[in-house]
Amino acid sequence: MANLIGRMLVAQSGGPTAVINASLVGVIQEAGRYPDLFPQESDAEDEPVPVMYGALNGILGVLNEDFIDLEVEKRATIEALKFTPGAALGTCRYKIDFQNKPQQAARDVDRMLKVFEAHNIRYFFYIGGNDSQDTAFKVHEEAVKRGWEMRVIGIPKTIDNDLPHTDHCPGYGSTIKYNAATVMEVAADIGSMATDDGACCLIEVMGRNTGWIAAGTILARRDPAGAPHIILVPEVAFDEDRFVAKVKETIAAFKYCVVVVAEGIKDAAGNRIGLDSTQIDPFGHGLLSGAADRLAQIVSKKLNVKARTVKLGYAQRSAAHFASATDIEEALACGEKAVRVAVEGKSGYMVKLERESNQPYRCTTALQELKDIANVERVVPREWISEDGFLPNEHFIEYARPLIQGELPVPMQDGLPRHAVLDRVPIPKRLPPREF
Amino acid sequence: MANLIGRMLVAQSGGPTAVINASLVGVIQEAGRYPDLFPQESDAEDEPVPVMYGALNGILGVLNEDFIDLEVEKRATIEALKFTPGAALGTCRYKIDFQNKPQQAARDVDRMLKVFEAHNIRYFFYIGGNDSQDTAFKVHEEAVKRGWEMRVIGIPKTIDNDLPHTDHCPGYGSTIKYNAATVMEVAADIGSMATDDGACCLIEVMGRNTGWIAAGTILARRDPAGAPHIILVPEVAFDEDRFVAKVKETIAAFKYCVVVVAEGIKDAAGNRIGLDSTQIDPFGHGLLSGAADRLAQIVSKKLNVKARTVKLGYAQRSAAHFASATDIEEALACGEKAVRVAVEGKSGYMVKLERESNQPYRCTTALQELKDIANVERVVPREWISEDGFLPNEHFIEYARPLIQGELPVPMQDGLPRHAVLDRVPIPKRLPPREF
Repeated sequence: MANLIGRMLVAQSGGPTAVINASLVGVIQEAGRYPDLFPQESDAEDEPVPVMYGALNGILGVLNEDFIDLEVEKRATIEALKFTPGAALGTCRYKIDFQNKPQQAARDVDRMLKVFEAHNIRYFFYIGGNDSQDTAFKVHEEAVKRGWEMRVIGIPKTIDNDLPHTDHCPGYGSTIKYNAATVMEVAADIGSMATDDGACCLIEVMGRNTGWIAAGTILARRDPAGAPHIILVPEVAFDEDRFVAKVKETIAAFKYCVVVVAEGIKDAAGNRIGLDSTQIDPFGHGLLSGAADRLAQIVSKKLNVKARTVKLGYAQRSAAHFASATDIEEALACGEKAVRVAVEGKSGYMVKLERESNQPYRCTTALQELKDIANVERVVPREWISEDGFLPNEHFIEYARPLIQGELPVPMQDGLPRHAVLDRVPIPKRLPPREF
Repeated sequence: MANLIGRMLVAQSGGPTAVINASLVGVIQEAGRYPDLFPQESDAEDEPVPVMYGALNGILGVLNEDFIDLEVEKRATIEALKFTPGAALGTCRYKIDFQNKPQQAARDVDRMLKVFEAHNIRYFFYIGGNDSQDTAFKVHEEAVKRGWEMRVIGIPKTIDNDLPHTDHCPGYGSTIKYNAATVMEVAADIGSMATDDGACCLIEVMGRNTGWIAAGTILARRDPAGAPHIILVPEVAFDEDRFVAKVKETIAAFKYCVVVVAEGIKDAAGNRIGLDSTQIDPFGHGLLSGAADRLAQIVSKKLNVKARTVKLGYAQRSAAHFASATDIEEALACGEKAVRVAVEGKSGYMVKLERESNQPYRCTTALQELKDIANVERVVPREWISEDGFLPNEHFIEYARPLIQGELPVPMQDGLPRHAVLDRVPIPKRLPPREF
């Protein structure tokens, strides 16, 4: 199985995270440790050609042969990518959708394999979430079917923390570290302005279907009176009356109330509480924009309390200036592991994280077959949330706390973070353009 | 004038900032350098009583005699306040309003002086913005009128940066440092996801009447293609057609567009573009919530482009985890200066910052009479904004850049910032309760 010689390709997919590039660094740096396996070949003009490609904008870069030469990138740039948010290679949301668009999907997979053959790509690493792991699985299957010997390994990435089989997902720890710090700071602010009427602040965080991100802000709470006082997750049906009563009770006790709300909370009938800000109702009115704004209206109307909102949006998945050192290191380790197991001969797996112990926290990398990942979404267990549904409990805290530990010194320039930018030297195309 | 012996009182007012407590630290630490001026007295029971008071919740604490003993607070706590957001003493928005409520205002000022007399308070330091400087002025005037010898000094504080006569305001630098870093990070994220249709992200920041905060995010822009691409400030009338054209042009060039918008932007007729999320129209519909959401609707409707929003809200004025070292040091220096000049015999002044040079940046503290501060709001000069009104120019950048320089190591605990909490040992009251 071993000693498969050929080119290596890495790509990034889906929504970026603060540490998605750390996984890329892991792949690049680990691959550099096997110079014999990936020798520089000669092309038609007898020039050596690079053996490590990056695809621009994920799978789209593969379909369009938009490859760059990762070997001519400066080592310092690669190192600095650990602290650079966004996807350094670019990303996409393009989905190979066998269920709804089977013909297009078959054409896409065929095209990808043709591109791999044309460039002698024998290793493919795909950093992404649920859909991306599915894509990697389809590529792996097709390669096996066609007898194109290659190694396909998925690398997990998502702030949503909803991938199955892995203890947690790279990207998640940094998001909840930043969000929890924000909750602490906002709470210090609003708590110090407490008035006789009381005040309420609603902080909206990501999470359409799962409450992992919202729940993570419980780490901001250092005493029983502390914020957040209420955390609303999609796993628990929203009940307006019970919510209003809880806010009222909290303000009576502490004069202020900090609520963290996942964007995707729903009522018992399954209706979302918040709606997209870009939707317009049939009468041309703007609809309520987001769960936090909707809740602010409810609170101010029913309790006559001043309600303010914060919507962190993309800031929470790109806050590399306050990333978790644990998260960076694990993202890096996942990239390294992917290369190592591919070199060993594995294909069709996703790297996963396995927790060995909590005190001290120890976590290692392992493998899970890609076929087990696709289309499975992991939710916060109900038994990790208090009976009344308003706060995660000690089981969740024990799970989440290790993931936010540690900080690394962020490279700075002129008072702001210094982000790395790849030179992106293109690789010549070898095929006619893709036919759609 | 010198050698006025008596108690010292400090209070905080208005919306907190990331460094409002650094000014408090400056007051407390500087006062500690004059042990002879502020000897411990004896009270009725022959116990020494403290000479440094903190008033809880600003002027309300004075009116209600809610004082705490700052001398029994731990030195380590005081030091850690430099990194603690919110107002450590609590704050208020209570206004002594001679214009609209002259009788109440007269009663309030009379009560304050009675409280000062009862506690032998001879020094009063008020950390706050425009309204608070006005309050300090009224107190100073009343003390002079009654012949109660005391020293009243205002200490500037506002993220809005709208106080006149001072080069800039403590709190501002940290806000724009955090906001600019956020814009960089969000831009790295959205820029790496660029699609054929293009994408737009609208980031709403504070600033009801002035664009200082929004303008400050220009520091995130490190190359001509970089974000933010458009900054909308209240000083320039919003024109929907010109805005849409500019977004379209930006997306055509770069595939994405990052817009920073001050919450208070208005059209040429003076109508605000965004409305409070808590307002309900006569038909029970929720109104558009905030300028960014409104602009997102416009962009997605007119350009068919996916538009996302970020609303930083209170997070931007409390982000002590990423404060500007320059800002912390200047806030501290303003507190120290206030004590120093009071000891020298000055009263009725606000400490201000005077810039001596830009390269190297040098700034010192000076004084301005309180009567010159009240009810004057400084706006961004039109000549510091590009002709088309969409971006601050090099004059603004030269002004703002020094204010975000430097970082101090933030005390951490378990992966999150460690905030200081005062013990708040109360001082016994000496008067009957306030009559309203």
